[in-house]
Amino acid sequence: MSDKRVKKVVLAYSGGLDTSIILKWLQTTYGCEVVTFTADLGQGEELGPARDKALLLGIKPENIFMDDLREEFVRDYVFPMFRANAQYEGLYLLGTSIARPLIAKRQIEIAEQVGADAVSHGATGKGNDQVRFELGYYALKPDITIIAPWREWDLTSRTRLIEFAEQHQIPIAKDKRGEAPFSVDANLLHASSEGKVLEDPAVEVPDYVYSRTLDPEKAPDTPTVIAIDFEKGDPVAIDGVRMSPATLLARLNELGRANGIGRLDLVENRFVGMKSRGMYETPGGTILYFAHRGIESITLDRGAAHLKDELMPKYAELVYNGFWFSPEREMLQAMIDKSQEAVTGRVRLKLYKGSAWVIGRESPYSLYDQELVTFEEGAVAYDHRDAAGFIRLNALRLRTLGARKRKLGV
Amino acid sequence: MSDKRVKKVVLAYSGGLDTSIILKWLQTTYGCEVVTFTADLGQGEELGPARDKALLLGIKPENIFMDDLREEFVRDYVFPMFRANAQYEGLYLLGTSIARPLIAKRQIEIAEQVGADAVSHGATGKGNDQVRFELGYYALKPDITIIAPWREWDLTSRTRLIEFAEQHQIPIAKDKRGEAPFSVDANLLHASSEGKVLEDPAVEVPDYVYSRTLDPEKAPDTPTVIAIDFEKGDPVAIDGVRMSPATLLARLNELGRANGIGRLDLVENRFVGMKSRGMYETPGGTILYFAHRGIESITLDRGAAHLKDELMPKYAELVYNGFWFSPEREMLQAMIDKSQEAVTGRVRLKLYKGSAWVIGRESPYSLYDQELVTFEEGAVAYDHRDAAGFIRLNALRLRTLGARKRKLGV
Amino acid sequence: MSDKRVKKVVLAYSGGLDTSIILKWLQTTYGCEVVTFTADLGQGEELGPARDKALLLGIKPENIFMDDLREEFVRDYVFPMFRANAQYEGLYLLGTSIARPLIAKRQIEIAEQVGADAVSHGATGKGNDQVRFELGYYALKPDITIIAPWREWDLTSRTRLIEFAEQHQIPIAKDKRGEAPFSVDANLLHASSEGKVLEDPAVEVPDYVYSRTLDPEKAPDTPTVIAIDFEKGDPVAIDGVRMSPATLLARLNELGRANGIGRLDLVENRFVGMKSRGMYETPGGTILYFAHRGIESITLDRGAAHLKDELMPKYAELVYNGFWFSPEREMLQAMIDKSQEAVTGRVRLKLYKGSAWVIGRESPYSLYDQELVTFEEGAVAYDHRDAAGFIRLNALRLRTLGARKRKLGV
Amino acid sequence: MSDKRVKKVVLAYSGGLDTSIILKWLQTTYGCEVVTFTADLGQGEELGPARDKALLLGIKPENIFMDDLREEFVRDYVFPMFRANAQYEGLYLLGTSIARPLIAKRQIEIAEQVGADAVSHGATGKGNDQVRFELGYYALKPDITIIAPWREWDLTSRTRLIEFAEQHQIPIAKDKRGEAPFSVDANLLHASSEGKVLEDPAVEVPDYVYSRTLDPEKAPDTPTVIAIDFEKGDPVAIDGVRMSPATLLARLNELGRANGIGRLDLVENRFVGMKSRGMYETPGGTILYFAHRGIESITLDRGAAHLKDELMPKYAELVYNGFWFSPEREMLQAMIDKSQEAVTGRVRLKLYKGSAWVIGRESPYSLYDQELVTFEEGAVAYDHRDAAGFIRLNALRLRTLGARKRKLGV
Repeated sequence: MSDKRVKKVVLAYSGGLDTSIILKWLQTTYGCEVVTFTADLGQGEELGPARDKALLLGIKPENIFMDDLREEFVRDYVFPMFRANAQYEGLYLLGTSIARPLIAKRQIEIAEQVGADAVSHGATGKGNDQVRFELGYYALKPDITIIAPWREWDLTSRTRLIEFAEQHQIPIAKDKRGEAPFSVDANLLHASSEGKVLEDPAVEVPDYVYSRTLDPEKAPDTPTVIAIDFEKGDPVAIDGVRMSPATLLARLNELGRANGIGRLDLVENRFVGMKSRGMYETPGGTILYFAHRGIESITLDRGAAHLKDELMPKYAELVYNGFWFSPEREMLQAMIDKSQEAVTGRVRLKLYKGSAWVIGRESPYSLYDQELVTFEEGAVAYDHRDAAGFIRLNALRLRTLGARKRKLGV
Repeated sequence: MSDKRVKKVVLAYSGGLDTSIILKWLQTTYGCEVVTFTADLGQGEELGPARDKALLLGIKPENIFMDDLREEFVRDYVFPMFRANAQYEGLYLLGTSIARPLIAKRQIEIAEQVGADAVSHGATGKGNDQVRFELGYYALKPDITIIAPWREWDLTSRTRLIEFAEQHQIPIAKDKRGEAPFSVDANLLHASSEGKVLEDPAVEVPDYVYSRTLDPEKAPDTPTVIAIDFEKGDPVAIDGVRMSPATLLARLNELGRANGIGRLDLVENRFVGMKSRGMYETPGGTILYFAHRGIESITLDRGAAHLKDELMPKYAELVYNGFWFSPEREMLQAMIDKSQEAVTGRVRLKLYKGSAWVIGRESPYSLYDQELVTFEEGAVAYDHRDAAGFIRLNALRLRTLGARKRKLGV
Repeated sequence: MSDKRVKKVVLAYSGGLDTSIILKWLQTTYGCEVVTFTADLGQGEELGPARDKALLLGIKPENIFMDDLREEFVRDYVFPMFRANAQYEGLYLLGTSIARPLIAKRQIEIAEQVGADAVSHGATGKGNDQVRFELGYYALKPDITIIAPWREWDLTSRTRLIEFAEQHQIPIAKDKRGEAPFSVDANLLHASSEGKVLEDPAVEVPDYVYSRTLDPEKAPDTPTVIAIDFEKGDPVAIDGVRMSPATLLARLNELGRANGIGRLDLVENRFVGMKSRGMYETPGGTILYFAHRGIESITLDRGAAHLKDELMPKYAELVYNGFWFSPEREMLQAMIDKSQEAVTGRVRLKLYKGSAWVIGRESPYSLYDQELVTFEEGAVAYDHRDAAGFIRLNALRLRTLGARKRKLGV
Repeated sequence: MSDKRVKKVVLAYSGGLDTSIILKWLQTTYGCEVVTFTADLGQGEELGPARDKALLLGIKPENIFMDDLREEFVRDYVFPMFRANAQYEGLYLLGTSIARPLIAKRQIEIAEQVGADAVSHGATGKGNDQVRFELGYYALKPDITIIAPWREWDLTSRTRLIEFAEQHQIPIAKDKRGEAPFSVDANLLHASSEGKVLEDPAVEVPDYVYSRTLDPEKAPDTPTVIAIDFEKGDPVAIDGVRMSPATLLARLNELGRANGIGRLDLVENRFVGMKSRGMYETPGGTILYFAHRGIESITLDRGAAHLKDELMPKYAELVYNGFWFSPEREMLQAMIDKSQEAVTGRVRLKLYKGSAWVIGRESPYSLYDQELVTFEEGAVAYDHRDAAGFIRLNALRLRTLGARKRKLGV
């Protein structure tokens, strides 16, 4: 246990067995007042039961905080990240990573509001989420005390956890008594699973692990074609219907789910130093990723696009590692946002059995537009003969090198 | 016309109408001896007819060079590039770009052999290929004279080209009289199309433009599962059968074609400064891309993997822009190759209606291996409590910043 | 000559012999109206004589534009660039490069104002300045016609230039009849020289080439100590005296000159493909460079500082190559400026015989401040034991690699 | 104390008071056999007294290891790093950082030789050196036990340390009884100081802190001119006299010391998260840095040079943070070394009162060489007219953007 005395702690509380045990453990170990915070980030669960359970476990009503953060989540976290086309290690759309900073931020706000001196979370000691939560806490409230039960307690087996729960009258669902075959994280952007049945990276992910997408083989035999409208880099409408950020992402999720889009089976490198194998489902996000690249392809200049591509891996790494509230992420965001001013227009995509293909894009700001390429009356900007000079000057240093090589061998 | 006097020119000759016109135009304009070079890079056409046509157009037999470069192409160009996971602008696997340096290199070798003072190619004055060819020529033989007919001649319309062909008894296939609805480039890695019917990026690519892949909707209803073995970053076997580089890529192409894999409809930024819309089919390459990432995911350390990811866009840009024979590409290659020493093992993939998913990977060099993670007898390297220190030191600068912000507002 | 018809051209006019010849050549070759633009960028020459000479050469008074751009130059070009700590090829402070975009911008503004359809400049065809001017022109007015006399005319020797001048009654100063031993560019940030006497990079630059700095050996034997105050990344005062940007830079130039600071003898790589040897004097800029790094060292977070350092070479290359008015430079600037919000405070420097050393720095926003590092009452943020966990998790992947190497050799 | 049982430990032993206390503390706390390792890295101290002291403290002769590592240090660590032009945070030449991996490597070799199960060092718990040592240990021998006394023991004040020393009959030099006004690290590349009298970054470093360089004001009034010869990126001779790596660096140190070259007063960002103020003296290294850039300036192609510059900050950060034995540092080294094949030639420098200026450079491999730039008989590669095409194609995308901006405002 931490050697700090704690009077009041804000716990990120899901209402599930594990965080209920943490709740009780905090009370008994630290003898402190527990404030629960439960957020709706689109994980697909009602918040009501969490409230009931908190009450049952003795939390005072004024200490129970429930927030619907879906719009803020998508508008201020998911969309800015998608402006960057962020993919960690070339493939992962960062669905878990991007939710943590918002939860941390809200927990700190509540801590300030209720005068709590500590925060706590249910992330394990081997994963990335503990880092993401805690970097957020520390950045936003440097003097906060952090309690990470999984790193502190001695409830190191399922048996002991269950014993502790029974001892403290924490209700235990039947299917929670044994070790889960895999653990799940979910929000409006994605669901991810890892653990036990996924541990051998040579073995295919069993179909029952997937929850957000149809098996592509069971998806419809005819493609779905949709149109997404973008304004300044963010999607604003589907098939011409304007929607709020969260509504739009939810709609893309439905479309993605139905067409089996967004499954990813990945071995990734954790910030804490080991490899892990995870399964991700990002149905709407996958569609959005391709759509955003599609609209950028006609509205973004090459210089801007390549600079973004070169810095994307760094941006993705920062988000993955939990540095959302860092100056370098904010600097990169300023750079990216600067590039999105004219990223406005419509992209059409075909969704079919696991894939989302861009099949058309148009924009009032298109740089592909033929008229733009004509700069003067009756004259086109491009003169074939220019290419000769362009090539010759680009070749000059290579020719100098070539001459040296022929003369001197290096 | 160039103001250089030319005695003998080596022409990259496909045997088609356009390069036949160039051949004749070189003879008549420069009054020089023409040497033809036709390469089999897996474009899917017999070389015989090209030889016949060259003879018909008056080329002396000793001036006709035909080479099967497929193995060299895949071994020394395609595979090194795939070690880098190169994708231009996030999506394009560089199928056209990677073939040009090899053609340029072989043309220069022939020029040296036959004592030619010039080389020529059939790339247009608005595209990237002229740059790729010519940077290659200049790098390898700095004093070479380059003739780029499309930038020089006055055959600026289809009508005039056809007239010139008729005037010089160049045989014209019926379907070549009119403007082609699109132009094609093909080799063992890919086929690409651009032009006319593809010009409006809002309009879907018509299905008849595709030649290397089945329409995903027409692909088999049951997935195909394959295993690819890698050694030091390169694929060496499919389903346990060892193959030469070109044979292996050809086999992946068949598998990709049958399952509708590797189509890409893209608006890209050309090196010469404008955007263009192209359609690419890279069936085997697409499978290879995911497979290579898959084997790297368990055999490559995070530091190595992230460094590669950060530099990939630059590498891809160099290849796209034609700087294959440049010190910076060679430096990056040295760096990448250094990382591939243990990228050895087997990846299993599921191919299905347009997608290639990695479903398993294993390796004797796996860094995921549980045994490796145990460093000492009876003890595991990872101690949960370490994470607390790790996080606190990573957070230290953020806390200092947070304290400043609270105190001073910035 | 360009095949464009030109009615009115805005010429960047210095009043010297070369641009006077250009002026006349434009009149006689294009038969167009010439508008002259002469800017005071701190090059150290009066503008009056340029006006007189323009009148003498027949330019109408309303077609003569003279602007004092010193403040705009330093505020909007020099200072933003110094926020980036930009050094081209590790050493060059970009004194010439940074002046070109402003001249180009002003020329285009004048062209719009007077209804000119063309602009012209006196940069040669082998250098970088032609690129910098013309990229600026094109970016700001895509349909402008550009006349670059040095690339067009046949006045290819000193003799022919002088003949042309005599023929057209252009006054010729005595010392301008022969080839100059070196050519000079100067503005408030620097003076540079290149050419003839500097051509052999093995031979030391003769002392008479320097004009902005005392020979360090002749500088005072006692150091000068100064203090520079910064606000949000820009210098605002010297020794407590607030000054306008141009006044401040001029004052730093005096201090630098007196102490022999800012000489640089460099072989650099031009954008047009060859190497050139130049001599630069950047007295005030050199002091400013070290001072800015000094104030950043206590006010900038590590993440921000390292991101800046990683991107600095790219930023410097963009400025050097003439891409000031490009989206990627603007994106990088947005990123850099975002980092400068708290770069405020005082730096003290010692100036002595060619060197400027930072000897002290302080700031209300210092992140070095001991109080900030103490986050809680009676407790310091740093616990030695945290370092163990920090190291162990950072080492984890290296240990895994080490174990593999021991077991398998790679 | 660590919970590991330890039988034999290899201690990095300087012979000073602190590591003598550690020696005794290891014996008394762990009850283990202590093996001492003392290296000559050019720190300027005799090794004999360390041996005597070790014997005095009860170390068996066969457990005392003394190595002269100067040549290996310079050849395999310093020179490879200087090939990269590495500067941490733009200024620091990494003198402390680069010595740690070699010490770690040698300690592990000794541990293997004598069958030790642990290693120990005297670095404190707040600095970078503990990280550098330990990452090295772990990378080279993943199952090693590391004892870091400063993080473990309770000798947390000078008084208690002295008490412990007295208690165990460890000889204490008179000037070691009190707290040192600053602490020093030294090797053949540099000396650094930090602590107490340097703590306030606003206050100038007192002159008595410097030990490796004359005060520039007291340096000779006439410059010293030297010539350094390079081969493949490494210096091999001074003024024509070939020397071994360590001899050459020692000679450069003498030259630098005499001319007051290489002082640096810096506030830097530590890997462990806080800022610290240090004073560095790198006399020979500073000369070498400028000389190496000088020889590269004529022998390295632009593409190679710029790629190196872009990656230098990352390389420097890796060395600073202690990741010498990491795949990413090795990959970068492979890339850098690839570039140095023709970095051969002579650089002349002027040394004077704190500065080292390159005044001339020449090379048989010079890319500046006029002959190389002439590719053909009677013709020069550079045609002024090429520049027009070069500029126009580089401008094309900017013109397209400019047209959009004029039409649509973005």
